[in-house]
Amino acid sequence: MKAVEETPMGLGAEMKVLGERAQAAARALARSSGQQRIDALESMAQALRSNVDQILEANAQDLEAAEARGLDSAMVDRLKLDAGRVESMAQGLSEVAAFPDPLGEVLMERVRPNGIRVGQVRIPLGVVGIIYEARPNVTADAAGLCIKSGNVVFLRGGSEAAQSNQAILSVLRSAVAAAGLPEDTLMSLPTTDRHWIGEMLKADAYLDVIIPRGGESLIRYVAENSRVPVIKHYKGVCHVYVDGDADLNKAEEICFNAKVHRPGVCNAMETMLVSESVAPTFLPAMAERFEQAGVVLRGCEASRRYAENIQPATDDDYHAEFLALILAIRVVKDINEAIDHIETYGSDHTECIVSENYTTVQQFLEEVNSSVVIANASTRFSDGGQMGLGAEIGISTTKLHAYGPMGVTDLTTRKYVIRGTGQVRS
Amino acid sequence: MKAVEETPMGLGAEMKVLGERAQAAARALARSSGQQRIDALESMAQALRSNVDQILEANAQDLEAAEARGLDSAMVDRLKLDAGRVESMAQGLSEVAAFPDPLGEVLMERVRPNGIRVGQVRIPLGVVGIIYEARPNVTADAAGLCIKSGNVVFLRGGSEAAQSNQAILSVLRSAVAAAGLPEDTLMSLPTTDRHWIGEMLKADAYLDVIIPRGGESLIRYVAENSRVPVIKHYKGVCHVYVDGDADLNKAEEICFNAKVHRPGVCNAMETMLVSESVAPTFLPAMAERFEQAGVVLRGCEASRRYAENIQPATDDDYHAEFLALILAIRVVKDINEAIDHIETYGSDHTECIVSENYTTVQQFLEEVNSSVVIANASTRFSDGGQMGLGAEIGISTTKLHAYGPMGVTDLTTRKYVIRGTGQVRS
Repeated sequence: MKAVEETPMGLGAEMKVLGERAQAAARALARSSGQQRIDALESMAQALRSNVDQILEANAQDLEAAEARGLDSAMVDRLKLDAGRVESMAQGLSEVAAFPDPLGEVLMERVRPNGIRVGQVRIPLGVVGIIYEARPNVTADAAGLCIKSGNVVFLRGGSEAAQSNQAILSVLRSAVAAAGLPEDTLMSLPTTDRHWIGEMLKADAYLDVIIPRGGESLIRYVAENSRVPVIKHYKGVCHVYVDGDADLNKAEEICFNAKVHRPGVCNAMETMLVSESVAPTFLPAMAERFEQAGVVLRGCEASRRYAENIQPATDDDYHAEFLALILAIRVVKDINEAIDHIETYGSDHTECIVSENYTTVQQFLEEVNSSVVIANASTRFSDGGQMGLGAEIGISTTKLHAYGPMGVTDLTTRKYVIRGTGQVRS
Repeated sequence: MKAVEETPMGLGAEMKVLGERAQAAARALARSSGQQRIDALESMAQALRSNVDQILEANAQDLEAAEARGLDSAMVDRLKLDAGRVESMAQGLSEVAAFPDPLGEVLMERVRPNGIRVGQVRIPLGVVGIIYEARPNVTADAAGLCIKSGNVVFLRGGSEAAQSNQAILSVLRSAVAAAGLPEDTLMSLPTTDRHWIGEMLKADAYLDVIIPRGGESLIRYVAENSRVPVIKHYKGVCHVYVDGDADLNKAEEICFNAKVHRPGVCNAMETMLVSESVAPTFLPAMAERFEQAGVVLRGCEASRRYAENIQPATDDDYHAEFLALILAIRVVKDINEAIDHIETYGSDHTECIVSENYTTVQQFLEEVNSSVVIANASTRFSDGGQMGLGAEIGISTTKLHAYGPMGVTDLTTRKYVIRGTGQVRS
């Protein structure tokens, strides 16, 4: 949709060809019906099931290469596919197919004094770039969410999963074509060579957005170097504040769940803030329960008065996204000091207050402007699926376009439609 | 709200100090009431009126400098203030004060099966950077729209208007402080030295968005070099397609208005596409009317068969935003060829169809995904005020966050608010 003259200087000829193919597919896809997109998604789900052997064979090659390169076991676990995981990918596509269609929704229509009708209608973004690391399931998940929302997906997966990604993509492309949509609805870079990332980041004439998924350094690299708009989150330094008016049983369950349920994910609690008025009652039992679950505790001086198993915390600990069984603790005077701490150390991801006091809860929910603010429930609910948004394409901790967990609706934009009967401006 | 460690390398110490002041003001502003923001806007309007002499004196210095530097008359006209223009700025602020408050709006709330309530609430973006050229009225307009939507505005005006901008800003800052909001709600760079733009573009730890307003080269520079998300439009190459089923009287009025009413603005028509079935009837009269209004016509070969005053068009003419009494013309086979032309040469700004055929109109409105698509009315209605959005902070032709004319609502984002009663995730 951009004029040829606007093609940025220095963009390689190959990337231009890919970009033009993506744009052509995006135009066709924007004109497809909701039923065609559902059919394509079902066709993709079936194709994954029918070609599971071929996919697992490709995955075995990646696993072999990973072993030869000595990748760590967490990475290998993310990389590994089996029949069950392929079936999950297929089921995910069917679930996305069944979502309500986000496209065509009329968000408003008003009649102006001169009789023109001004409406706003939901349309696809166009071409969505996804840069991700070693998880081959992202290939199918991202493809599904993008097709549902009428977008071409332009993938750049990690080199560790190159064979798996290629096998999955090839199966899905055929399935999309069999269902009557352009094969180029699903695109990827020709190789995992790093220079191609640079080409993607320059291709603002062809890509409407890039969503990087992976470690902080990858995301930071993309954000700092991209001419294409980026939706991102760097990290989740999530807080729970246990207020002086908290129900301490609820507080203990929520803090325990927020830290221990799945410590390696971005919505796990990383710092617990405790009002000084309940610290003497709350901290000793809480610290013991954490210790039994193997959680390493690092706290401020005040907190260490109430439990022997709390190590001294440094300022770095309050900035840290541990993604592990480590917890930073700070005793605060009151909600205002808690909010100040969050504003200094937080990452705009998710913060929680535990309190039975109406006014204190309201203050927290109104004044804390992280993407998800929670009263009296675990931070682990900060998740597209748990919040009823359907499958998640990512999470945004910057405020433009989307803020918080992103579902299919966040892969759309709105155009204005004006209907007149010959009006001109005087 | 960002951790200190995330401050990008290379950001100057002075910019960090300014950024931290802006962030502190943004926190205070986010907690202000709608009435406080209304009071601040009214106080600002009054202050402009009371200090008109001081503002005009500063403006006279800018005009003197402009004359000495030989700036062209269009630039001088944009720069020049008088009592009437200052009064318009004041009235603009009062009008913005009277808008409905966009903040706090609950966009949805749903109850999940486990009883948690998930809502979405409108909040400010935070700190909005505006980079603009010689129009001093932008200082007051942007300040007004940002305060209404709860945002700190961070201004970088053109050096031509340095004295005027400083005088206006100083008056407005005092007025905001008198109304009880932080002076730093309105910030600007300390000088108009160009290196400061670079500092702004790197300050993604402090600015939530930058909106560049001005010529295409300024906007392109900002878009290509900013680490802060940018909302922009490069240019408006707007099309009117006169369909074979057009009411030719409406078509003539609409095309004439779209080209001639105000040719120097981005929603003026730049290319007229005419169906070959009506070209013989429509073009001769239309071309004559344009000629009488002093419009230079450049068309394809087919168009030149119907009017002697059409010069040959080059491919560049179809890419051009003339912003002048020049019009490119092309005869097309049908709506599909018209849409193809728009997709090749368009700028995603505004496109119009003139047709009485229901199905053709629907096809155009559905398939053309420019930010504003119009049936049977002038492209000049692609304007926030005309569309009922209130005053316009800018226009976006990229799809992320906002697409089309932007009002105060587009200076906000949405956070999720979850209310529980002790739920944890199992």
